[in-house]
Amino acid sequence: MARKHDGSPVTVLGLGLMGQALAGAFLRKGHATTVWNRTASKAERLVAQGAKLAGSVRDAAAASPLVVICVSDHEVVGGLLEQLDDVLDGKVVVNLSSGTSAQARDLAARAARRGGALLDGAIMAVPDEVGSKDVAVVYSGSRAAFDAYEPVLRDLAEATYLGEDHGLSSLYEVAVMPLMWGILNGFLHGAAMLGAVNVNASAFAPIAEQAIGSATRWLAGYARQIDEGVFPPVDVSIDLHRAEMQHVVAESEALGVNAELPKFIRAMADRAVAAGHGGESYPAMIELFRAPG
Amino acid sequence: MARKHDGSPVTVLGLGLMGQALAGAFLRKGHATTVWNRTASKAERLVAQGAKLAGSVRDAAAASPLVVICVSDHEVVGGLLEQLDDVLDGKVVVNLSSGTSAQARDLAARAARRGGALLDGAIMAVPDEVGSKDVAVVYSGSRAAFDAYEPVLRDLAEATYLGEDHGLSSLYEVAVMPLMWGILNGFLHGAAMLGAVNVNASAFAPIAEQAIGSATRWLAGYARQIDEGVFPPVDVSIDLHRAEMQHVVAESEALGVNAELPKFIRAMADRAVAAGHGGESYPAMIELFRAPG
Ligand SMILES: NC(=O)c1ccc[n+]([C@@H]2O[C@H](COP(=O)([O-])OP(=O)(O)OC[C@H]3O[C@@H](n4cnc5c(N)ncnc54)[C@H](OP(=O)(O)O)[C@@H]3O)[C@@H](O)[C@H]2O)c1
Ligand SMILES: NC(=O)c1ccc[n+]([C@@H]2O[C@H](COP(=O)([O-])OP(=O)(O)OC[C@H]3O[C@@H](n4cnc5c(N)ncnc54)[C@H](OP(=O)(O)O)[C@@H]3O)[C@@H](O)[C@H]2O)c1
Repeated sequence: MARKHDGSPVTVLGLGLMGQALAGAFLRKGHATTVWNRTASKAERLVAQGAKLAGSVRDAAAASPLVVICVSDHEVVGGLLEQLDDVLDGKVVVNLSSGTSAQARDLAARAARRGGALLDGAIMAVPDEVGSKDVAVVYSGSRAAFDAYEPVLRDLAEATYLGEDHGLSSLYEVAVMPLMWGILNGFLHGAAMLGAVNVNASAFAPIAEQAIGSATRWLAGYARQIDEGVFPPVDVSIDLHRAEMQHVVAESEALGVNAELPKFIRAMADRAVAAGHGGESYPAMIELFRAPG
Repeated sequence: MARKHDGSPVTVLGLGLMGQALAGAFLRKGHATTVWNRTASKAERLVAQGAKLAGSVRDAAAASPLVVICVSDHEVVGGLLEQLDDVLDGKVVVNLSSGTSAQARDLAARAARRGGALLDGAIMAVPDEVGSKDVAVVYSGSRAAFDAYEPVLRDLAEATYLGEDHGLSSLYEVAVMPLMWGILNGFLHGAAMLGAVNVNASAFAPIAEQAIGSATRWLAGYARQIDEGVFPPVDVSIDLHRAEMQHVVAESEALGVNAELPKFIRAMADRAVAAGHGGESYPAMIELFRAPG
């Protein structure tokens, strides 16, 4: 596949919050952009910015060699592919809708039967951030397709290729999501605690950000511990974490806020301590995460 | 209280991982540093760097106008204060041991009975990071004591004063901890998932860091939503999060890793959806965190 240049034509199917952001980023980078959405009215702003609204899924896909799909889920993607039986030959389809790895492999097989090559991508960002190099989309599937369209895909975000297995990008997406919910839930819990003593969430946010920065700096070292399978307590032992979890539970209860989150966290640490890991560093708990509960 | 200059004498009681880091930072900044630890051998490295090892808690505290205490917990701090009956008058005690806000207020009362002023602090960092301006210690209690020793305290980390209530720093500490465990547990869960397909934790770490960066950038806006009590789904709705949680649970089960963490996360979202928040943004869940479970 020849390497596609920056201005090559693109099609975006699906104009929800994310699809609109993707099409908008392509337009800003000068791509001839054809769009389609089940609810056509969502295309209005993009059309005003120069997008071409197609009358059908088929017409939209026929307009460009690169077809980006971003709809609610993989079932909807499957339904769209059905309508593209005779126009996918030689095209590259980039699915940016979320799903499981098994679904991604299934979509790839369906596209292949129609002569299309599928790249499955996972957007590690919210719509607002699309178009920035600070955020990434990870891709898996056809290496040739990635290589050909990499410059175009970089107009959306940093583009990282993970491997030929179409399921990899979904796996990375589901692997990072618990981290993000961990931050969101942790922030909400902290905001609820401080809210109980009339500290508002906006006052808490900068301190939360600093703590996140610290925890983030530990990850590379903790990752090495996991890969090497040895967990010296260079900073904080699980025992010390466990004592601190006890404080959070007690303080939550004293403040009258929901203590379920710290109790869940403490229950994990309890099991790690019971399994003899109390004197080791936090990532020794990887064992609990690996074993089915 | 007169403002203390950078080189003023300090005492550190407790030389665990954190106490050693604190005393080391004071020494590097040129403070005459007196130390004490139950297990005296832990002072060896510091003594080689110029610290003076005292023979008793009392002698250590008598040596400096500022006494920093960093031991396992508040009970141990209380035990140390008992031994300082006649030397605390006019001194500032900075407790950097973790505990609950009620314990911090109790320690302050005990120090006050002996003529000492207590500042309670919470270290938002691991020992390695002490001495860096990238990390913070938050303080609460006597404003006069903070103002007098602020330049000295800044030799340990950024120093933020929260207010006269001695319990505030403990509250901030327990408020940020769930965020940190959220990151650690999320990282371990993701590493377990990717480990099941032979991606190592060190390969996952940079992508995890990028995702953390995204989630962190949402917090200021989400904090505003919480403070204003309105939750427009500007980026992702709880319904969409809920669908993604379902993927994480399914994928965890398919990979044979422990699905407890994503199931716990999903259960929270289920309740938010049941309470009618599905169309709102994630921080609408603050309601669940506020209400006792
Ligand atoms: N938003 C984010 O921050 C984010 C981040 C990473 C990944 N993603 C993923 O991106 C995908 C889209 O997210 P979004 O935020 O754009 O969601 P959204 O705003 O809810 O949009 C959903 C899109 O799917 C379309 N759709 C739903 N059912 C359909 C059907 N039966 N036939 C045809 N079209 C159908 C909708 O069309 P109508 O307009 O006609 O309803 C709309 O275009 C999801 O898989 C999501 O997980 C989103
Ligand atoms: N490590 C961190 O990353 C971190 C971060 C933030 C806050 N903190 C807080 O800092 C405090 C200390 O943590 P650490 O990491 O230094 O813990 P550590 O390495 O376990 O050290 C505990 C210290 O407490 C002393 N101690 C325990 N029981 C005692 C007793 N009955 N009488 C006298 N001394 C006693 C120990 O003395 P021996 O040496 O004689 O046992 C040692 O000096 C904790 O409250 C922790 O929550 C730590």
